[in-house]
Amino acid sequence: MKSVVFLIQCPDRKGLVASISTFFYQRGFNMLNCQQYTDTLKNQYFMRVKLDLESLGSSRKALEEAFGNFAKEYQLNWSVHYSDNIQRMGILVTKASHCLYDLLLRWKEGELKCEIPVIISNHPVLETVADQFKIPFHCLPVTTDTKQRQEEEVARLLKLYHIDLIVLARYMQILSKEFVEAHEGQIINIHHAFLPAFQGANPYQRAYERGVKMIGATAHYATAELDEGPIIEQDVERVSHEDSPEELSRIGRDIERIVLARAVKAHLEHRIILSGRRTVVFAGGL
Amino acid sequence: MKSVVFLIQCPDRKGLVASISTFFYQRGFNMLNCQQYTDTLKNQYFMRVKLDLESLGSSRKALEEAFGNFAKEYQLNWSVHYSDNIQRMGILVTKASHCLYDLLLRWKEGELKCEIPVIISNHPVLETVADQFKIPFHCLPVTTDTKQRQEEEVARLLKLYHIDLIVLARYMQILSKEFVEAHEGQIINIHHAFLPAFQGANPYQRAYERGVKMIGATAHYATAELDEGPIIEQDVERVSHEDSPEELSRIGRDIERIVLARAVKAHLEHRIILSGRRTVVFAGGL
Amino acid sequence: MKSVVFLIQCPDRKGLVASISTFFYQRGFNMLNCQQYTDTLKNQYFMRVKLDLESLGSSRKALEEAFGNFAKEYQLNWSVHYSDNIQRMGILVTKASHCLYDLLLRWKEGELKCEIPVIISNHPVLETVADQFKIPFHCLPVTTDTKQRQEEEVARLLKLYHIDLIVLARYMQILSKEFVEAHEGQIINIHHAFLPAFQGANPYQRAYERGVKMIGATAHYATAELDEGPIIEQDVERVSHEDSPEELSRIGRDIERIVLARAVKAHLEHRIILSGRRTVVFAGGL
Amino acid sequence: MKSVVFLIQCPDRKGLVASISTFFYQRGFNMLNCQQYTDTLKNQYFMRVKLDLESLGSSRKALEEAFGNFAKEYQLNWSVHYSDNIQRMGILVTKASHCLYDLLLRWKEGELKCEIPVIISNHPVLETVADQFKIPFHCLPVTTDTKQRQEEEVARLLKLYHIDLIVLARYMQILSKEFVEAHEGQIINIHHAFLPAFQGANPYQRAYERGVKMIGATAHYATAELDEGPIIEQDVERVSHEDSPEELSRIGRDIERIVLARAVKAHLEHRIILSGRRTVVFAGGL
Repeated sequence: MKSVVFLIQCPDRKGLVASISTFFYQRGFNMLNCQQYTDTLKNQYFMRVKLDLESLGSSRKALEEAFGNFAKEYQLNWSVHYSDNIQRMGILVTKASHCLYDLLLRWKEGELKCEIPVIISNHPVLETVADQFKIPFHCLPVTTDTKQRQEEEVARLLKLYHIDLIVLARYMQILSKEFVEAHEGQIINIHHAFLPAFQGANPYQRAYERGVKMIGATAHYATAELDEGPIIEQDVERVSHEDSPEELSRIGRDIERIVLARAVKAHLEHRIILSGRRTVVFAGGL
Repeated sequence: MKSVVFLIQCPDRKGLVASISTFFYQRGFNMLNCQQYTDTLKNQYFMRVKLDLESLGSSRKALEEAFGNFAKEYQLNWSVHYSDNIQRMGILVTKASHCLYDLLLRWKEGELKCEIPVIISNHPVLETVADQFKIPFHCLPVTTDTKQRQEEEVARLLKLYHIDLIVLARYMQILSKEFVEAHEGQIINIHHAFLPAFQGANPYQRAYERGVKMIGATAHYATAELDEGPIIEQDVERVSHEDSPEELSRIGRDIERIVLARAVKAHLEHRIILSGRRTVVFAGGL
Repeated sequence: MKSVVFLIQCPDRKGLVASISTFFYQRGFNMLNCQQYTDTLKNQYFMRVKLDLESLGSSRKALEEAFGNFAKEYQLNWSVHYSDNIQRMGILVTKASHCLYDLLLRWKEGELKCEIPVIISNHPVLETVADQFKIPFHCLPVTTDTKQRQEEEVARLLKLYHIDLIVLARYMQILSKEFVEAHEGQIINIHHAFLPAFQGANPYQRAYERGVKMIGATAHYATAELDEGPIIEQDVERVSHEDSPEELSRIGRDIERIVLARAVKAHLEHRIILSGRRTVVFAGGL
Repeated sequence: MKSVVFLIQCPDRKGLVASISTFFYQRGFNMLNCQQYTDTLKNQYFMRVKLDLESLGSSRKALEEAFGNFAKEYQLNWSVHYSDNIQRMGILVTKASHCLYDLLLRWKEGELKCEIPVIISNHPVLETVADQFKIPFHCLPVTTDTKQRQEEEVARLLKLYHIDLIVLARYMQILSKEFVEAHEGQIINIHHAFLPAFQGANPYQRAYERGVKMIGATAHYATAELDEGPIIEQDVERVSHEDSPEELSRIGRDIERIVLARAVKAHLEHRIILSGRRTVVFAGGL
């Protein structure tokens, strides 16, 4: 079934639900789902509406024009997403295979509705994984001297392949401020710690030294500040004094996999609205 | 801030959100929160609307009459709940104090917005707890012979104290079909197992013997079939082969406490709609 | 580092730790790890000792003979497992790929220390997965008429490939009493529910109908009674009224994957001792 | 049943288990439980032995002397704890009642085996709670000027009541370096965040602003560095964008309660050995 999702954000005021739902009702839409959230501290209203596209009585352009006019009146920030417009996800990796494999399998099983036209790495080791799934693999090694040029080449490839969503699946390179800002809200990173604990390098080793009793992982949108971007999803697992740093790293791989997959799924299903440093993530399966 | 909650259930159809939200908008209401769910398998629509009562421009009776007429047209099943109409919770216990104490503390800390005018037990041991919180305690012992009379006396007391919600906080008596059906949707029971596993007696002992690796608890509405009522909330905790039945029972107490408290809170906040054997439980804090 | 694990089970009595540890100490062994458990209800003692094999001062045969004599005196049930004796795991599947892929990836990443010489299925669809990892794939379709013959062929293949551990990774066939008993303690099955809840077919559909608030998965040794074997590992995930049976099934796949992997890992690392219907599972990473 | 626990820590070497267990075996002890851990990174060995005190064939003094001589030979750090030597726990609070109530109830239900001879607060509000359980309550208000004198009075009271374990159950005062170091390993604090995230003040507010998807609590031994002491126990709960700082605080109370209770229980049962910044916490129920 084809559907269309509207994501809406605006200052809260009386009658928003009534006005917006009436807009769609008058155009004959069958509303499949409607999720809302009011941030009473900032007086902001957030809405995700999913409509049956079969009931669209006009061209998409006409719908967008009409809603655009309506939105101006109500000061809505909005975006529209058609289910038949399949998003294109590019995956950046280094050496660790677990997140890459996990994304590829979920994609193959139909759990992640997207295309994966390219995998880019600064290291050759995961080429065989890309081959297993018949996806073009570009190896762009990087040194301190070539950092900028390599990143430009990454950007060029992402453009060439028409990538909508960039997933850093344990890509062990820090991206430049320019790169990150040019792709705002389009880069999802997985950090192998329960942020804001253990930002930066070697989180499992530091978790071991601090003697924590649970370890975690965090998926977030990349911003210019390292590991400071809006959090999309987190999870943890219990550990004990018996677990060595290597064991923490092994346990952590399962958390990273699942947390990254949930975040990517939420993004692809247009269930996330950014609100400053916070994310509104509407429940899934809807 | 005073508020009013409408709980609505009806066959799904186009325009429901628009019509209902417009009804309230036209009457000048500020909608504080609106939660929805469509059961696509049964084509049923569920809605919880919370409105600012300060914006009520008529009498409550007039509002209800107007909504009643509107509801007839749309075949809505509905109920209305005013925040200043404090519910009265009666607690039934036997000997175990942990759930009783937990409810009393949450009530005292303001987490459970209700009155607790009476505690009834078939055993005298928890009278001192009731005394600590200055709540009338009625001890109604029961034998096979007096079962029916005792239950009638329980019912009489619940009526006398104008009880809206009956909580079985580890009340170790099976209630009659008549009693349960007379209080449909008004009795919450805590079962010390992860239903439908280990229905009936001695769940911790049976969990031990079966060698499960997690134990749980389940809060549900009581129905005539024992431990078969609609589930409101469940949770579990990891255990190991080292945990004896007594240890399982101790670990279980913490799960029982939290699961029962969450269920009672959801009920008191009018976040639950019954749908056959299932419950729709809207998210809290809203 | 090469190591050897002794698994020991016997009636509890004074001096067991002293006697057993002295046995190994006198033979110059460096004890890497020692885990114990006393079942006080059944008066049974369980021990897992891991020794540095480099410190073995005799032949393995001589060690086993000496320990055998010692064991007779103390009535020990015991088994010995050398780390350089790599176990051979055969995987049985039907159509679902998620558990199969998960096992293969963990094996490839070195998390599961074993060989996987064969994959057997009653359906051809997962042949391509086996091919990706260059593992022989045998398709043995089955009908009511051919059930017995097919199972004999499965048994023949498992023998041919010298399989030590049989993993039913969502193999949708019920094995005969004869087959199961011939491989006691060597077959691990993953059931897609939190046993003993929802034994048998269609657990996710039944979980939906019962309206549970968490779903789970259970890895257990197969026995003649379906879904009644000793539980090795379980886990759960929170769900809500919004999750359709399909959504439960999708969420469940992640639980199945992780629960099965943990159980297989525990088995391969010789951390499990069977005790009637219960399992003693010693902590991992050791 | 009376028992005695030995906690042992020493450099790892061959034959430790054999030597120690033989020491007890030769003295006729029935070993109820024996838990071990080898920190291979630091080459340290940790052991907890629980013995049936009924089988003690000498005076306690003689046992300790004999073990002391044995320990010197093997360079063991050790301590001995008799089950009939009931520990005395002093609780320090400010205004929040949830952790205090929780400790008192678990104590009353027999879950925490200790005496609670005194509750000290810098604020009068919880006196009624102390009264409910008939425990002496000392109110010692504090200002910037009186900070040192107040702390000295706290120390005097703890000494007067022969306190073994000091529990900071949401005591909102920073203790001086002197005080903390004078009670090393005897002060357990509950911090309302998943350390090392959100050290210091207002963790729930900061968790809200950072937009985390889970919140937690941490029980740790107090050290001179605020919120930097060895962690004993942690747990978390899932939250969402819908949860306001107040809601996080409410959800967090349940985590704080349980985490603190588990840590206090582990301490009272002599299951914790300090190892630098880390804790070895042996499993419970044994």
